[in-house]
Amino acid sequence: MIEIIAFDADDTLWENEIYYRRAKEQFVELLSSYDGDREGIGRRLDQIEVGNVAIYGYGIKSFTLSMIEAAIDISHGGIRADELDRIISFGREMLDTRVEVFPHSADVLRELAGGWQLMLITKGDVFEQSLKIELTGLKEYFRYIEIVGTKTSATYRTIFERYHIDPQQVVMVGNSMRSDILPILELEGRAVYIPYEHTWFHEHVADQETHEAGYYELENLQQLPGLIRQLDQNTR
Amino acid sequence: MIEIIAFDADDTLWENEIYYRRAKEQFVELLSSYDGDREGIGRRLDQIEVGNVAIYGYGIKSFTLSMIEAAIDISHGGIRADELDRIISFGREMLDTRVEVFPHSADVLRELAGGWQLMLITKGDVFEQSLKIELTGLKEYFRYIEIVGTKTSATYRTIFERYHIDPQQVVMVGNSMRSDILPILELEGRAVYIPYEHTWFHEHVADQETHEAGYYELENLQQLPGLIRQLDQNTR
Repeated sequence: MIEIIAFDADDTLWENEIYYRRAKEQFVELLSSYDGDREGIGRRLDQIEVGNVAIYGYGIKSFTLSMIEAAIDISHGGIRADELDRIISFGREMLDTRVEVFPHSADVLRELAGGWQLMLITKGDVFEQSLKIELTGLKEYFRYIEIVGTKTSATYRTIFERYHIDPQQVVMVGNSMRSDILPILELEGRAVYIPYEHTWFHEHVADQETHEAGYYELENLQQLPGLIRQLDQNTR
Repeated sequence: MIEIIAFDADDTLWENEIYYRRAKEQFVELLSSYDGDREGIGRRLDQIEVGNVAIYGYGIKSFTLSMIEAAIDISHGGIRADELDRIISFGREMLDTRVEVFPHSADVLRELAGGWQLMLITKGDVFEQSLKIELTGLKEYFRYIEIVGTKTSATYRTIFERYHIDPQQVVMVGNSMRSDILPILELEGRAVYIPYEHTWFHEHVADQETHEAGYYELENLQQLPGLIRQLDQNTR
């Protein structure tokens, strides 16, 4: 029996990674006057970004600080103040951007909310994510909304314990093997993997980790209600 | 009857503002070679910081971005890369600093947790705050831990509704009139104000707003258990 359907948010219900990619492209363009190796610029930013996730966590502010640090590094300290202002503005534009909800998110959530309790579990900055959730117009479908710093099995366990939810009665839906699928399987919950083409490389995991892990995989969100009905033993 | 005792965290249970003040002093020192008016440098940073709270939210990353922006502004674009690196390191040192818990926090929480359910409600960055809560060793005393982007009466209402808590059965304890006391009184909950000498000016409110607002004021946390016993009608 399914008690809770939990959803990842970024790149599962709405666009997210695409805004980072756009900012990265602008960053590479800006820095290309200091270093002709555009791919190298991108790689250096990626490197600093992954290192900074451990220090600052996820989110646009963390990413903006990474761009500033990478700019100083790539320009060997030559970066100008007006260029730094532009980099700061790349981050601000990301915060200002109206988030694009995937075409079928609202319909699917509405349909599922009629039969099950829905939970949103997203990682990142609570200020950024709260605002985004408000703006998407999807908030009403969720009984629970949880914004967390990292998504490990310990994080999920804490959430489920807080609401006295048995992980075996949870189905988690998301686009990240590392953050959404594997930790839930570890708790003996069920997980539905809906890959997204732009998933950040940091969220990828080696193939052997997912081998025979026992999750469900769908091509798109529209297929979810059918799978859920199939999984849920109880007729409602 | 009191069902929940809710605590603010920063500057109520442990030091926080002091770390911002320290970083600010280092910042003013660093920028003083560009502008002899040290007070002016501090005021400019404050200005940018308050403006950025609306854009970035609270926390060390937001503050670091404010320092970078202020440095570019105050130096009229003359700030050097090595100085920017130092500014970034001021922020990182704040993140690395082992948080100093107030001397009586653990004892008071232990005593109260024996009789009532405790909740921690802190605003700021979920990554920064989660880590901090882990490191303070006070986590075990709390039945609920909530990290929020802003502390308005709407924020508190959402939390209490989630757990089916009647605000009239809540006592909120904190050092900020704006964030901890007034929003709770608005919901007809009770509030205990424990002022802290270093409270950030942005958290101050005009006197008329607090006039006859009907909260309790204590000099220090040690006086809290006595007040709580007095307020709670039920003997336990």
